[in-house]
Amino acid sequence: MRQQMIDMVYRVQDEICKTLCELDGVDFREDIWNRDEGGGGRSRVFSGGSVFDKAGVNVSVVHGRLEREAARSMGGGKILGDEDLDFFATGLSLVLHPKNPMAPTVHSNYRYFERGDATKEGSWWFGGGADLTPSYLFEEDARHFHSTLKAVCDRHEVADYPNFKKWCDDYFHIKHRNERRGVGGIFFDDLRLTDKEKCFNFVQDCADSFLSSYIPILSRRKDLPFTEENSKWQQIRRGRYVEFNLVYDRGTTFGLRTNGRIESILMSLPLTARWEYCHEIESDSEEERLLKVLKNPIDWVK
Amino acid sequence: MRQQMIDMVYRVQDEICKTLCELDGVDFREDIWNRDEGGGGRSRVFSGGSVFDKAGVNVSVVHGRLEREAARSMGGGKILGDEDLDFFATGLSLVLHPKNPMAPTVHSNYRYFERGDATKEGSWWFGGGADLTPSYLFEEDARHFHSTLKAVCDRHEVADYPNFKKWCDDYFHIKHRNERRGVGGIFFDDLRLTDKEKCFNFVQDCADSFLSSYIPILSRRKDLPFTEENSKWQQIRRGRYVEFNLVYDRGTTFGLRTNGRIESILMSLPLTARWEYCHEIESDSEEERLLKVLKNPIDWVK
Repeated sequence: MRQQMIDMVYRVQDEICKTLCELDGVDFREDIWNRDEGGGGRSRVFSGGSVFDKAGVNVSVVHGRLEREAARSMGGGKILGDEDLDFFATGLSLVLHPKNPMAPTVHSNYRYFERGDATKEGSWWFGGGADLTPSYLFEEDARHFHSTLKAVCDRHEVADYPNFKKWCDDYFHIKHRNERRGVGGIFFDDLRLTDKEKCFNFVQDCADSFLSSYIPILSRRKDLPFTEENSKWQQIRRGRYVEFNLVYDRGTTFGLRTNGRIESILMSLPLTARWEYCHEIESDSEEERLLKVLKNPIDWVK
Repeated sequence: MRQQMIDMVYRVQDEICKTLCELDGVDFREDIWNRDEGGGGRSRVFSGGSVFDKAGVNVSVVHGRLEREAARSMGGGKILGDEDLDFFATGLSLVLHPKNPMAPTVHSNYRYFERGDATKEGSWWFGGGADLTPSYLFEEDARHFHSTLKAVCDRHEVADYPNFKKWCDDYFHIKHRNERRGVGGIFFDDLRLTDKEKCFNFVQDCADSFLSSYIPILSRRKDLPFTEENSKWQQIRRGRYVEFNLVYDRGTTFGLRTNGRIESILMSLPLTARWEYCHEIESDSEEERLLKVLKNPIDWVK
């Protein structure tokens, strides 16, 4: 399974980057990196193109031995002996921040973990998800994104869209603001219900569906006209993105604690962000319409 | 002591804001706020003036009952009975982010805590400090800032400049970057070594010395010429400021967990910030000169 997952994440990284290159009109910067404690990764980042402020698509394949507390916080079943502290993790992680404030940011992450020799109950699992973060709400975009993910879930008995959708709303919750980061998508972790192959097939299908879930949205928004006020609001929303990632995101906080590659971990942060003191929005504005949805998540597909 | 400290922080807030108004050419916005659980504060924020991107000077006077874990993390002596969960806290907190990249950001905070009826050992204490965060290093600024603080410490037997200076370097450490946030200053907590009055006198002297520690620096830097590249570097350094405050700062993380007033807690964040993937600096540049000092703190005064 290790190799199967590794092959998949590298293949999907290639496919996604090829499409992004064509759209953005520039090539990505690639960094192959190694981790002192074992393993490494391949980071690809777009900047300076026509479509994205910053966009990163990262593969990592890491292994080593964890501290007991870190091992506990990463998920999976109970940790018994010291041999359970050995881990293997591989994943594909991407965050795309378009320039145009009408085009939403998107994030997606698919990962596979093993602990010890991966034979015991709870010693292997998959996790992942995808979520959409607009600054301006286009309901058809949210519906398209969710419909695509639901269709993937519906094809696999290991998946449960309503549950994964709620999990996503709960996970991407900026508690101190009582706002979600965006309009959600799906989120799942500790997926080890049936056999590995079925779980892998679902995760692969998710990863393969990324482009069809997002590119149609990006295509219809990336060239829309916008005002300076729209850009300012986008910058404020990006401030909230930073707040979520640095305060709550488990992958980010785990990476910062465990000597991960900082540039790859913080690749998810936007190029620029803004914090205005007591920023107020007008009632009945587009900004307010988005906030209402962030405070009370909607079921985009039935 | 409660009233003595409250009177002091309001008085110093007034004096500092008066000076900042004259410099910045605009008035501050004032918000008087109340906290559901008890107490409140007075926030004053400058924006849109000629000198500061954003500058906040905040007083808070809060009380209530803490969760056991929150009570433990706030400092002081051992928590015995439930009566030790009642707390009182008052403080003055300021962060000034100038527009000009040659002018450093400054932060200062002075606070007084009581737990229970404040009669037991460890049931009252003072904390505080001040630190300077330049984007470009002017050694005379760092020396002036530290000399002023050292002179204050030297006037009070409860203070210990070398210890408080090191404490500051250790506290404002962005561990995942192995960089300090800035060139330091002083930091102290749990100050309850001798009688209250002596501690108060030291803390008051610190607060009263803020203007003389910082305004001469600001005055000589606020109108210096700068390039677009200088501004970009300032934005990147502001990204690091955000990283420290959201990931490590105890006041910020404590406030976000305990239903504090979000706008007052996050007032410390800069107006704008920037994260470039794998930003590189030229060797022998001014940017590198700063980074060296952030990686290896210097004794600015002997």
